[in-house]
Amino acid sequence: MRCMLTVYGMADSGNCYKVKLALEQLALPYRWVEVDSTRGGTRTAEFLARNPNGKVPTLQLEDGSHLPESNAILYYLAEGTPLLPADKTGRARALQWMFFEQYSHEPYIAVARFILRHLPADAPRRSELPRLQERGRQALAVMQQHLSQAPYFAGARYSVADIALYAYTHAAADGGFDLGAFPAVKDWIARVASQPRHVALG
Amino acid sequence: MRCMLTVYGMADSGNCYKVKLALEQLALPYRWVEVDSTRGGTRTAEFLARNPNGKVPTLQLEDGSHLPESNAILYYLAEGTPLLPADKTGRARALQWMFFEQYSHEPYIAVARFILRHLPADAPRRSELPRLQERGRQALAVMQQHLSQAPYFAGARYSVADIALYAYTHAAADGGFDLGAFPAVKDWIARVASQPRHVALG
Repeated sequence: MRCMLTVYGMADSGNCYKVKLALEQLALPYRWVEVDSTRGGTRTAEFLARNPNGKVPTLQLEDGSHLPESNAILYYLAEGTPLLPADKTGRARALQWMFFEQYSHEPYIAVARFILRHLPADAPRRSELPRLQERGRQALAVMQQHLSQAPYFAGARYSVADIALYAYTHAAADGGFDLGAFPAVKDWIARVASQPRHVALG
Repeated sequence: MRCMLTVYGMADSGNCYKVKLALEQLALPYRWVEVDSTRGGTRTAEFLARNPNGKVPTLQLEDGSHLPESNAILYYLAEGTPLLPADKTGRARALQWMFFEQYSHEPYIAVARFILRHLPADAPRRSELPRLQERGRQALAVMQQHLSQAPYFAGARYSVADIALYAYTHAAADGGFDLGAFPAVKDWIARVASQPRHVALG
């Protein structure tokens, strides 16, 4: 069976937006199937058959199988294209920043945004915000330090590492973050947004 | 400047053990510099110059530069060797499970182990254990489902995806987890431990 690449994703999710942005910039044809994880869409038997870990995005490949994990999808799409460095050390640097994003950045910056956008104003999880914002600022400081010395995350050129980090960083204000303290990050956001075939979140 | 590969790591850390296991199985010469992150070793100016994110492991490459993030290091070491699948989809599957490990597994199973091994018995963070153990069991259930259908995580052969997941899974009892409910995981642990040039944690 040959399928068109199909994204199962939620339009407001930064992790899903990463995949959309890469597909658009690589000019690859794809279908988008909207799955609302805030209303149980990732907990149905049908969805769990696609990704037993119950998370969006997952990409249905040409052979019909599913590939979950946003940054593994980015790497898959980018291999052999200008969006992934052509040398081994460059690829490792891209992965370094993509693992940084999933471990030290997304669990704070994306989760703060989720609480403020998707939970009621009196939700008990609001008590998590001070710690999330403190740890998120630490991640932004690491990015600021890198971007004070280099224009992009994996070498001299725009790559999937930038796509991975842009997704939630450019929307950090939604999580209560002020990027004014991180001017190199703000400049990098503008550089990413000016890349050819850029599309917005949402 | 040409350097020998040098690991800055803590012997009891599963993330650092991943790198040691891959280096041993690939028969690569390396130096190990012990850094005790529980006593501030990752917060010194000297260490932060190696990894501004303040975490072990970091690998000093032959050119003198540093590569942090355990799973990016694994990928770097494994490229072009039997420890990484030779096809694009296989590499993406290896990365899928390595991102799963850092996002859905390590923050629960490794952190529960850290609290029980390194913090005093009356530490306030003990209150986190029920949630960490619940989420950790969810990760083990996803692994059990996969391993009921396949011997390894990225296809038919042992790879860096197995190294990444083995590190904290085989030590899960340290975090209060009972692997008796996950028999396919237990069998996989035995398969991983029987690979050539295997070395133990610690």
